Amino acid sequence: MSSLSSAPALPRVVIIGCGFGGLEAARTLRGEPVDIVVIEKTNHHLFQPLLYQVATAGLAAPSIAAPTRWLFRGQPNVTTMLGEVCGIDPAARCVRLDNDHVVHYDHLIVAAGATHSYFGHDDWAAQAPGLKTLADAFEIRRRVLTAFERAELEEDPQRRRALLTFVVIGGGPTGVEMAGTLAEIARHTLAGEFRRIVPSTAEVLLIEGSNRVLQAMPEDLSERARQQLERLGVRVRLDALVTRIDAQGLDVREGGASGAATRIDSGCVIWAAGVAASPLGRLLAQATHVECDRAGRVRVQPDLSLPDHPEISVVGDLAAALSHVPGQEPRPVPGVSPAAKQMGRHAARNVLARIAGGATHPFRYKDWGNLATIGRNAAVADVPTPFGPLRFSGYPAWLFWLFVHVYFLIGFRNRLIVLMDWASAYWTFRRHARVVPEVRESER
Amino acid sequence: MSSLSSAPALPRVVIIGCGFGGLEAARTLRGEPVDIVVIEKTNHHLFQPLLYQVATAGLAAPSIAAPTRWLFRGQPNVTTMLGEVCGIDPAARCVRLDNDHVVHYDHLIVAAGATHSYFGHDDWAAQAPGLKTLADAFEIRRRVLTAFERAELEEDPQRRRALLTFVVIGGGPTGVEMAGTLAEIARHTLAGEFRRIVPSTAEVLLIEGSNRVLQAMPEDLSERARQQLERLGVRVRLDALVTRIDAQGLDVREGGASGAATRIDSGCVIWAAGVAASPLGRLLAQATHVECDRAGRVRVQPDLSLPDHPEISVVGDLAAALSHVPGQEPRPVPGVSPAAKQMGRHAARNVLARIAGGATHPFRYKDWGNLATIGRNAAVADVPTPFGPLRFSGYPAWLFWLFVHVYFLIGFRNRLIVLMDWASAYWTFRRHARVVPEVRESER
Repeated sequence: MSSLSSAPALPRVVIIGCGFGGLEAARTLRGEPVDIVVIEKTNHHLFQPLLYQVATAGLAAPSIAAPTRWLFRGQPNVTTMLGEVCGIDPAARCVRLDNDHVVHYDHLIVAAGATHSYFGHDDWAAQAPGLKTLADAFEIRRRVLTAFERAELEEDPQRRRALLTFVVIGGGPTGVEMAGTLAEIARHTLAGEFRRIVPSTAEVLLIEGSNRVLQAMPEDLSERARQQLERLGVRVRLDALVTRIDAQGLDVREGGASGAATRIDSGCVIWAAGVAASPLGRLLAQATHVECDRAGRVRVQPDLSLPDHPEISVVGDLAAALSHVPGQEPRPVPGVSPAAKQMGRHAARNVLARIAGGATHPFRYKDWGNLATIGRNAAVADVPTPFGPLRFSGYPAWLFWLFVHVYFLIGFRNRLIVLMDWASAYWTFRRHARVVPEVRESER
Repeated sequence: MSSLSSAPALPRVVIIGCGFGGLEAARTLRGEPVDIVVIEKTNHHLFQPLLYQVATAGLAAPSIAAPTRWLFRGQPNVTTMLGEVCGIDPAARCVRLDNDHVVHYDHLIVAAGATHSYFGHDDWAAQAPGLKTLADAFEIRRRVLTAFERAELEEDPQRRRALLTFVVIGGGPTGVEMAGTLAEIARHTLAGEFRRIVPSTAEVLLIEGSNRVLQAMPEDLSERARQQLERLGVRVRLDALVTRIDAQGLDVREGGASGAATRIDSGCVIWAAGVAASPLGRLLAQATHVECDRAGRVRVQPDLSLPDHPEISVVGDLAAALSHVPGQEPRPVPGVSPAAKQMGRHAARNVLARIAGGATHPFRYKDWGNLATIGRNAAVADVPTPFGPLRFSGYPAWLFWLFVHVYFLIGFRNRLIVLMDWASAYWTFRRHARVVPEVRESER
């Protein structure tokens, strides 16, 4: 049994987090003469791009989550630890876990990812859950399904209307796909199952602070996304700022700072507006005197390491990184999963270069394009080609999105099951995971 | 919109619970001129015989749970209500829900099922969860998987040994299948995934108070079940009584009342020993002056109705019912799912007979036999035939068990997915649902 707190015979690479960045870093070091320790808060790697499908009862959790240990079963140089990092000591080269374990490192790759940000309104979290973990997804699934159940039993028309008003805050990729799917659930999935309400009369609102949805997309695709959302039954409100969220609904100010606030009564509000880096970023910044940006992301060197700490790299959503193409101005790396994977691979290769006594290389982001799904037969795609960007939307973009996501899912079983579930959902409109393990007493 | 608290135009049949008994009662009334209200605490019908597979990470929850509403989507005379019954008023003919709804009935079928009983030691519930609901299954899955995780990080050999000691209390069908599956997880599923512990050194103990497992089976099959359990790696302790359960393990007294107590340190104790009727039984007994047996089950008339209350029937695990075969002594109906289904169907037919002004009929239980699975290739079966009972065990019994359970699963998708998951688990030893949404801080 190896001791984790002392230095091992081989160089120790500690990887914090097993999302896209951390997993790819560990896999890149497969077969190399290093001793890898992966520290993860949960026991699984999550395929986050499909998390909204778990939240909207289209997929079961195990279809998009693979046990971390199982992923590394054939990689004997990896030890997996379940735990949360609560301290980093760069002088002693060790990390401290909340279960009191101390792990020594020679090289540290921090891939702790992002969480949601309520822009200083942390009290909104209870009223408007975000979507980052499986537990979040179950909570949203429970709220969506019990809202319909409560509406069925509600005698007061005004309260019934509020229970049938679903509000998604934030018009990024998560907000857009949540709103589109909620509209489909109301219009199709639940058709004929209620006796006192008509689920298709439910309203789905998407609230976006700026003047268009999917800001990372070109403007014309944003507009097409908005049109597709409206066609699916989503009411999109642009230039709308949330000023208050409480147990009964929310206040929204439209038309700029001078605009009037509108009250929206709602029994189910979902937060998809803000992303903040993991708190580990600030911890790391304090310990190494490196800077964070406004979102709490750590500003890294061109090779993804920290200034004065070449043995520490930060990758994925936690890194404020730049892409370096010779002869071009460095450009910010977007917070998407292909970027996290590329950074993870890059940091691992730099570790190997350092061990070999060689030089590290600056990170260069390979942009595969931008894809966002909206709902049934609806998506937008912006794919760079040697002949210029290829932009398309609607059914072809949706099919493209579908196959890309199935392709990148981990595990043959998951690919097969997800394809089957999607095919079944497509033809029957049925969402098979409409199961709430426990309904809270207050919500019956 | 119909009012639930006043009498409707058609006779109102209220069904409490949507397990095997309640679901079958509602389905039997399909197309009949009655107004059915099904009241259910959760939003799904659960295929309980496979719940242990969710607890042991072999199946995802949606594979064995079907949304109640979806089951009744094509039966317009059914209204589904999510709620828990907290009062029954036989004089006013109405039930009261914990969400303050009051539902009038002309005929009431109570199918609220059973829960676990700690024989007066309710404080054991926190240390040794039972297995009745999906939430229970998730809790057990979490405890089993995190015990291995904690053992991997534990430096103290004694505590490590305790974390690798799994104790199942109760040698009934649930206890036997839980113990057999835990042994398979330790011996096969987790092989090669840990670096500091050897999962196959984990001990799985099955504690049974009487002198044999599977009491409902003939003695020779009990003995064969015990042998199969031992072969799978389970240590079976018969005539062993649990006298104490705490956070570190349990005390067990073997060899009768005069025997000495042994201490077993364990990080994961599972309760499969006691079943008690739903508390609704006592509520009903108080309201109607009917008797309950020791397990809290309601003593019903031969036609499953209550004395002096022909409009109230009790079916399934909540009923202490007798099977009436002309010319034979009445015999107790066992607490198994085929019996619950038959009672549900019978009670519904009696409701129709009463509406038509006819006589009700005594219940007669059709015994299809007894099946229990133990683990990989291991099961026992006792099937009555016109030529006498057919008893078999091992691989043929396991195959028989498998096909019977897939056949009775609800929904084509579920049958297909469960078969696929079982085939994959059989060949690869992989259990794909090894996902814990949230690990408690104290358990990392």
